[in-house]
Amino acid sequence: MKEKQSYHMDLETFRKNGYATIDWVVDYLKNVESYPVLSQVKPGDIRKQLPDAAPEKGESFDAMLKDVTEVVMPGITHWQSPNFFAYFPGNSSPPAILGEILSAGLSVQGMLWATSPACTEVETHVMDWLVKMLDLPEKFMSHTKGGGVIQHSASDATLCALLAARERVSSGEVNKKGGTGNLIAYTSAQAHSSIEKGCMIAGIGTDNLRLIDVDDEFSMRPEALDAQIQKDKDAGLIPFFVCTCVGTTSSLALDSVAEMAKVTKKHDLWLHVDAAMAGTAAVCPELRFINEGVQEADSYTFNPHKWMFTNFDCNAFFVADRAALINALSILPEYLKNEATNDGAVFDYRDWHIPLGRRFRALKLWFAIRHYGVEGLQFHIRKHVELSQQFKQWVIDSDNFDLVVDNPLNLICFRHKDGDDKTEAIMASVNQTGEAYLTHTKLNDKYTIRMSIGQTNTELKHVEHAWRLLNEASDKLSK
Amino acid sequence: MKEKQSYHMDLETFRKNGYATIDWVVDYLKNVESYPVLSQVKPGDIRKQLPDAAPEKGESFDAMLKDVTEVVMPGITHWQSPNFFAYFPGNSSPPAILGEILSAGLSVQGMLWATSPACTEVETHVMDWLVKMLDLPEKFMSHTKGGGVIQHSASDATLCALLAARERVSSGEVNKKGGTGNLIAYTSAQAHSSIEKGCMIAGIGTDNLRLIDVDDEFSMRPEALDAQIQKDKDAGLIPFFVCTCVGTTSSLALDSVAEMAKVTKKHDLWLHVDAAMAGTAAVCPELRFINEGVQEADSYTFNPHKWMFTNFDCNAFFVADRAALINALSILPEYLKNEATNDGAVFDYRDWHIPLGRRFRALKLWFAIRHYGVEGLQFHIRKHVELSQQFKQWVIDSDNFDLVVDNPLNLICFRHKDGDDKTEAIMASVNQTGEAYLTHTKLNDKYTIRMSIGQTNTELKHVEHAWRLLNEASDKLSK
Repeated sequence: MKEKQSYHMDLETFRKNGYATIDWVVDYLKNVESYPVLSQVKPGDIRKQLPDAAPEKGESFDAMLKDVTEVVMPGITHWQSPNFFAYFPGNSSPPAILGEILSAGLSVQGMLWATSPACTEVETHVMDWLVKMLDLPEKFMSHTKGGGVIQHSASDATLCALLAARERVSSGEVNKKGGTGNLIAYTSAQAHSSIEKGCMIAGIGTDNLRLIDVDDEFSMRPEALDAQIQKDKDAGLIPFFVCTCVGTTSSLALDSVAEMAKVTKKHDLWLHVDAAMAGTAAVCPELRFINEGVQEADSYTFNPHKWMFTNFDCNAFFVADRAALINALSILPEYLKNEATNDGAVFDYRDWHIPLGRRFRALKLWFAIRHYGVEGLQFHIRKHVELSQQFKQWVIDSDNFDLVVDNPLNLICFRHKDGDDKTEAIMASVNQTGEAYLTHTKLNDKYTIRMSIGQTNTELKHVEHAWRLLNEASDKLSK
Repeated sequence: MKEKQSYHMDLETFRKNGYATIDWVVDYLKNVESYPVLSQVKPGDIRKQLPDAAPEKGESFDAMLKDVTEVVMPGITHWQSPNFFAYFPGNSSPPAILGEILSAGLSVQGMLWATSPACTEVETHVMDWLVKMLDLPEKFMSHTKGGGVIQHSASDATLCALLAARERVSSGEVNKKGGTGNLIAYTSAQAHSSIEKGCMIAGIGTDNLRLIDVDDEFSMRPEALDAQIQKDKDAGLIPFFVCTCVGTTSSLALDSVAEMAKVTKKHDLWLHVDAAMAGTAAVCPELRFINEGVQEADSYTFNPHKWMFTNFDCNAFFVADRAALINALSILPEYLKNEATNDGAVFDYRDWHIPLGRRFRALKLWFAIRHYGVEGLQFHIRKHVELSQQFKQWVIDSDNFDLVVDNPLNLICFRHKDGDDKTEAIMASVNQTGEAYLTHTKLNDKYTIRMSIGQTNTELKHVEHAWRLLNEASDKLSK
């Protein structure tokens, strides 16, 4: 028998399997509403169906696809279901998927401009597009001292903002000599856990992160921020960084960036704006009030992989002073030296984030924006906000539920009039139907259901159905 | 005119465009050798062809694909060309691409077990497979106190190892109170820049990273490591972390993990093993000498996205004590609480790395392993090593070139007998042909060409052709 010369999948087989995979995805998206939104498996249910060790001999692609259908699918919680109202949207869309396929097919590394110039240039270009589309300040564009970059997640972006601020305030000393335990960061008491995680990672310390009081709308109180900074200064500590939230995770509360900027300007601190989910709203002129004051920010981040129909991972991060960011993260070993880098004529994005390697993530964002056009993005964002405001009115008019916060965007927080236990039971009951999926938070220490309306394909009928399920559960549990 | 009800790409159009995209990728891979390996564009060449602003109206997918072909492609450096010998391989393969498509189609978030149980369980399972396939110690498997996780890159993995070590040595104090500037980390003077970057990010400080002397083979000298640790202890500093390299970036030099382990055991330091590129070699029993001593390591990382035919991003990171890692990175806000997490019966991978969000990356690795089987992976790794050893012999026998290091794996470092200028000119000349692409490093301060043989489709003929180009350039430049 002739010895096998290659184990690669030949390209015609790849084509056939590629079509089959596309068909699988199309079928999935067609039928996504037929699955329970929240996976119903128990811990270990998936693993126990898998063989203990990797196969010695290669297997057919059909076998793999069959396993995805039969073994994996019961363990999927369907973020692409229009009945997904949990957490925040983690959207995808056909054009973005097509971009992801090309990115995987090309499989280039964009760590340096030189390692694939198009990977860097398309990214820089699309980041500039975003600045214009969202009416962000020009100082975030690449022709100024600033610029934008795609990061893995908002956690990474916020960490990078922290590092840039840390290095600016310490004139590079922390990078050199290590942490000093006296740098103080500030954020809303309602801010995302990633700020705390970032402070751990960067060696700032959670004791040195001040969680600032919020007002009745869960927005950070500027006078409380100012007072705390002054107090820390008086104690000989070094305030250096404020993360303000355009849309908190719990309730999508909007800090006033303009008010925060007055405080950070007064004390000369780095102002980072975390607009992870809500940022996309600014594509609509009438919703740009969320970013008022952002022209004073040192950095800004939001997630196209949440609400801009671009599948994870695709976080957009902007800085006004890219030198501060690059100083915090740059290392240039011999094996990465090249003419374009030496000339300083290009962006080498490896110096803009934690990893060295990076794939061509701009393709999917470029495709999503081009497919929808600004007009199409506006249409769908407006629809989600409109549906949310309708839902809010139902809650206000309801005999069963109370509105907890009056949010102008697409997250409605509410609870049952009978209190925590009932609210929790209702949500569990709805999730068990598999027909909708919602998650909770606590606001003023009370159990609160979050209805997040932003999945790519969510329409009025899905929102109506969720509302019906909630009320049916309320009625059933009241008996 | 009826108002437009949706801007989404309908699913039948998606199917058609999906097939076209698959065809595009197949054509690309068929013709990849016809492109210059190293992109020949100048800074700005790509951007100047793109419109200044995002389109107001949506565009057709055909227009996008056309732009990829006409505008993007000249700016691509072809990491998937069998004539790519630069840096390290950044491999892809058809089964991995198919897995990536499904991952994008499902677009789930795997931050918690509960947010898509299959995303976590398949990942844990495949990480366990890898431990067996590579004969890594059982303590890295999930049924022990350890476990494996997919990270974005080796830079992220090494940063996480640093953080886990930092928290262990400080009993959680740094997370709480911030850096102290007296924790000391150690690595080879030949180690990857990511260790230095990690020390900057984690607030350790580059002054507190000791770059330990290497021997004539560029491997870290254990007695030098021991002496430096003792010296730092005597100075009242706190040594806590050693990163040892199984394959350095410059020359693929192999530290002796066993010798390093004796030192870290003596001084009770965290031992992290960075086998980013070379780790895949251990799938072949005869190459497992590279990992000798790894049973003493606290953590281990390698990149299936380099040499295991799985497209970026897919780094594998293993820890012996997952509690140390989780303690370093865990935050549990109310909005992420759920029954499975509370029970402690599951892995929530958000606590194992920097980001919160994470996509279903295990699919592509699972597919690549299943397609090739252990046998197929061994076949291709052996072939790459064999080709490299052949190339090495040509260098040894050559009148033009000198071998710089005698490496047993797949990176051959060599230079021209006439010195730096000639060596550099030869490499530039070969790269300008577009028929092969190599990069350089400096070893003992001398300009050295690196021939990295590991691209998925590299065969003898490609290696022979590169060798011919190098000698032709040498002859031409000697005239």
